[in-house]
Amino acid sequence: MSLRSILFRTLNQRNKFVNLAAAVRINHEQQSHREQEQQYRHNRTTVAAALFSFVVFAKAIKDKSDKPVEESESKKDAGTKVTFEAGQKKPDLPVFRAEEVSKHDTTDSFWVTYKHGVYDVTSFLQSHPGGEQILNAAGLSIEPFWNVYGMHKTEEIYRLLESYRIGNLHDDDVVEHTDDDMWVREPRRDKRLIVKTSKPFNAEIPAKLQIAHFDTPNELFYVRQHMPVPELEAKEHSLRITIIDGGTRSKQFELQELLKMFPQGEVRAALMCAGNRRSEMNKQVKPVKGIDWQQGAISNAVWSGVFLRDVLVYCGVDTVNTVGKHVIFQGSDIDATGVNFSTSIPLDQALNPNGKILLATHMNGELLPKDHGYPLRVIVPGAPAVRSVKWLESITISFDESPSHWHQKDYRSFNASKTWETADFASAPPIYSLPVTSAICDPADGDVCTVKDGCIEVRGYAYSGGGAKVLRVDISPDGGRSWVQADEMQWDDAPPNMHYAWTLWTARIPVSNGQTEVELWAKATDSNFNTQPERFEDIWNIRGVLSNAYHRIKVQIKH
Amino acid sequence: MSLRSILFRTLNQRNKFVNLAAAVRINHEQQSHREQEQQYRHNRTTVAAALFSFVVFAKAIKDKSDKPVEESESKKDAGTKVTFEAGQKKPDLPVFRAEEVSKHDTTDSFWVTYKHGVYDVTSFLQSHPGGEQILNAAGLSIEPFWNVYGMHKTEEIYRLLESYRIGNLHDDDVVEHTDDDMWVREPRRDKRLIVKTSKPFNAEIPAKLQIAHFDTPNELFYVRQHMPVPELEAKEHSLRITIIDGGTRSKQFELQELLKMFPQGEVRAALMCAGNRRSEMNKQVKPVKGIDWQQGAISNAVWSGVFLRDVLVYCGVDTVNTVGKHVIFQGSDIDATGVNFSTSIPLDQALNPNGKILLATHMNGELLPKDHGYPLRVIVPGAPAVRSVKWLESITISFDESPSHWHQKDYRSFNASKTWETADFASAPPIYSLPVTSAICDPADGDVCTVKDGCIEVRGYAYSGGGAKVLRVDISPDGGRSWVQADEMQWDDAPPNMHYAWTLWTARIPVSNGQTEVELWAKATDSNFNTQPERFEDIWNIRGVLSNAYHRIKVQIKH
Repeated sequence: MSLRSILFRTLNQRNKFVNLAAAVRINHEQQSHREQEQQYRHNRTTVAAALFSFVVFAKAIKDKSDKPVEESESKKDAGTKVTFEAGQKKPDLPVFRAEEVSKHDTTDSFWVTYKHGVYDVTSFLQSHPGGEQILNAAGLSIEPFWNVYGMHKTEEIYRLLESYRIGNLHDDDVVEHTDDDMWVREPRRDKRLIVKTSKPFNAEIPAKLQIAHFDTPNELFYVRQHMPVPELEAKEHSLRITIIDGGTRSKQFELQELLKMFPQGEVRAALMCAGNRRSEMNKQVKPVKGIDWQQGAISNAVWSGVFLRDVLVYCGVDTVNTVGKHVIFQGSDIDATGVNFSTSIPLDQALNPNGKILLATHMNGELLPKDHGYPLRVIVPGAPAVRSVKWLESITISFDESPSHWHQKDYRSFNASKTWETADFASAPPIYSLPVTSAICDPADGDVCTVKDGCIEVRGYAYSGGGAKVLRVDISPDGGRSWVQADEMQWDDAPPNMHYAWTLWTARIPVSNGQTEVELWAKATDSNFNTQPERFEDIWNIRGVLSNAYHRIKVQIKH
Repeated sequence: MSLRSILFRTLNQRNKFVNLAAAVRINHEQQSHREQEQQYRHNRTTVAAALFSFVVFAKAIKDKSDKPVEESESKKDAGTKVTFEAGQKKPDLPVFRAEEVSKHDTTDSFWVTYKHGVYDVTSFLQSHPGGEQILNAAGLSIEPFWNVYGMHKTEEIYRLLESYRIGNLHDDDVVEHTDDDMWVREPRRDKRLIVKTSKPFNAEIPAKLQIAHFDTPNELFYVRQHMPVPELEAKEHSLRITIIDGGTRSKQFELQELLKMFPQGEVRAALMCAGNRRSEMNKQVKPVKGIDWQQGAISNAVWSGVFLRDVLVYCGVDTVNTVGKHVIFQGSDIDATGVNFSTSIPLDQALNPNGKILLATHMNGELLPKDHGYPLRVIVPGAPAVRSVKWLESITISFDESPSHWHQKDYRSFNASKTWETADFASAPPIYSLPVTSAICDPADGDVCTVKDGCIEVRGYAYSGGGAKVLRVDISPDGGRSWVQADEMQWDDAPPNMHYAWTLWTARIPVSNGQTEVELWAKATDSNFNTQPERFEDIWNIRGVLSNAYHRIKVQIKH
């Protein structure tokens, strides 16, 4: 039995416990929300501590035959050369035993360890971009967590951690946490993808490949993972649907049964990460937290499966009294504390017949690849891709949104003046749709363009959320003084307000004789006649999401 | 019998002819579109000439007992003092007989008259903002047309006309065209409305009254007319529904019958003119054609009646094969050439159950006022108000959009570089939804604001089309360097994507001691996370529609 199988089995045990705890919470609705939250946090901390011990134990019995896939990439994130790492021994600092560290596990005194380092991060707790997730590491090593949330492993964050350093962990208590165990079964990826982080695996599609196909080939579709890819089999997979509505009712469907029971449907839809084009916000305004996506965190495909609405109606979901209810999607992917990925959408959105939300098994006519949710994934067209939960194992209709970190503490929007200190995630509405955006994909910034019939040819994509169609893309070659409308548009033929695919476009920009350089601005207008904002300054936000200002590049001209 | 009755009877005769012509066209689908257009134009010209003779004749038998309502306003547009009028006799120019003028009725040589003036406007035809409408006046006086389209009666346009002057009309052929006949039955209007043009009547609600009520009182609801208000009675009114779908089927409903047959419904929806806030585009960039609306061409109400979808389904409209079909709404209001107002929306939009499109008889619990469509009006929530056709008398499901001037040659959008010469209306998509917008209503630009607890209070509205909810309004008091989120929001409680009402908001803006002036910028963000563009420059368009850049005002501060 592989380490991974043991790990998953143990996590399943833990899930049963968490589900039990959830059921208890539901039966105590008179219990205040605050109390529930505290209890939930306590459960999580207990589980995390247990899991931590397990990981240490598991390491000892690790099956050495598991070889990492594409080892060179799994060792470090592409393009991020780390020359300084936290946790080196510092002889001039006091030494603490693990037992002493473990006592500092409250928000009044909050210590963690990393390799040889001991850190008092009490004052940092509130600013943690990952919110209360950090509480799970109270008095413990943060290394297992960082092995899952690999985005921490940058020089900037190592230095930040060292600024909280108070001592050394006693040599006898330093444990080697290896991260291989979680990642050995990752799928093989196409070499052409541009890797942003390898653990979890996040990679974008190169711009010129992006516009080479209206429906992106599966192997080139951008990949956004929060955790390791779980190992699932279609023939063993099932979907549980729970309706909490006064009482609690549940139905479980074997995947094959589900596909036989409901009519097959398909939808052509682009998926885009809410953080697509974040790098421009980073570069043009000031740094934000998040994967430094360029324009490649969007791709387009035809998805097929059965419609969520049909399944929910079959299960007896109340289609009239829908206001204030939510549909929580849970995936089989699990974080370092054993919590499954989950997020939710409003029930109204889920039941909208024009919403075309699919429980998808196929992508462009093929079985879903492992990286894209095999064997079952929900597709929420027109919404940020985070709502299209992969490896879907359960759906819950509830009076509450998903309680998960990913739902509560991420994928929300703030104005440009909100900081990590002043942003109130609880009152900020979750992002359930996306604004109009566009990008020039060919030429790239800095390219040399050859003039043909007095023009240079410019190609790109445009997209708008919520079913809006992109009606027009305009390019300015002179800082907004004039605009040239793209004259060749590739559209899906979906009906109005159900336009979930992206749009590819070509524009021909006149250039004058002797002109050697041009700056190009691209902006799209959608069927609600919304346009992109001019600059990133006024839409900047701490998470760098919804980064849809004009796309601007400079190119050289060859006559 | 009043002149008006005779006029309407004659126009009905003409309509029968036009309908017949339309039926013939439908039976000759092999006839090219171009040929159809030519025939249509020919019919219109013939009819216009006949109508012109009728108007002259009718004048002679005019019933002198018809007194204009609110005469002082009906004589001229408020705030537009015209000191120069076209058509004065110019002794040094040649004299033409009407018969000679009437021969110049082709696009190769196109003459018109106005009072004593004769004009060769051949070279102007293409630039006419009203498109081919002008062709109806070939070889004739344009005065009857201008009496209906009162927006022509400005000094600027009189001077433009005089620039095409070639002669004087023979004294014996000069006829006095009075415009009283068309307008004698106009309803009485609230004196607080700000009149932009009186014939047709277009008036906005003052900004501070706009935010005084979430549902605008009927008498303060902004008014947008294209023509005189028709006189209709609920007990005599009927609605004809025609389905052109292979064959042609029709059903006629007495209004009372319609209301008994279908379940009553209601929707809270703002209506906004596509040209709302046009004045800012005019002022901040360059002049556009259209009513110079400030921010008062939007109001909010609760509408009740029966749902269009229910009626269409009852009539047997194919709800599956919908793509490429349109729903044409025709009102009882008639232009100078006898053509009824009409426009259309895509059938998919009409059938969307979340679209909440009403055939409305009531507004805020009262019968529709005459100015707002009594006795029957369609309400298309989330669309520009032009689609919410007043005085609704017929609905046609067709493979074509409405052929009317208002549909084909107006309410479409272009990029900032398109001119009247280069804009191609046929390929520009009609505006069926509206982008996110907002305006500060109190204080007004130039007001003095009193500081309270270190802040000044700022109030306004925000709105987004297509059912999107306004999630946030942000105010910058320092040119975009910082943003203050409005902390008091008045929202309708509609479910997601069915949010058709506007949002009222209040923000408290900190000001520093000694600060004497502040410029405020307002921008809203909607549930698709679209925001307003910063400046009007890049969204400027020839018709001045979709004018939704930041609202900016300057106010004085009193400590």
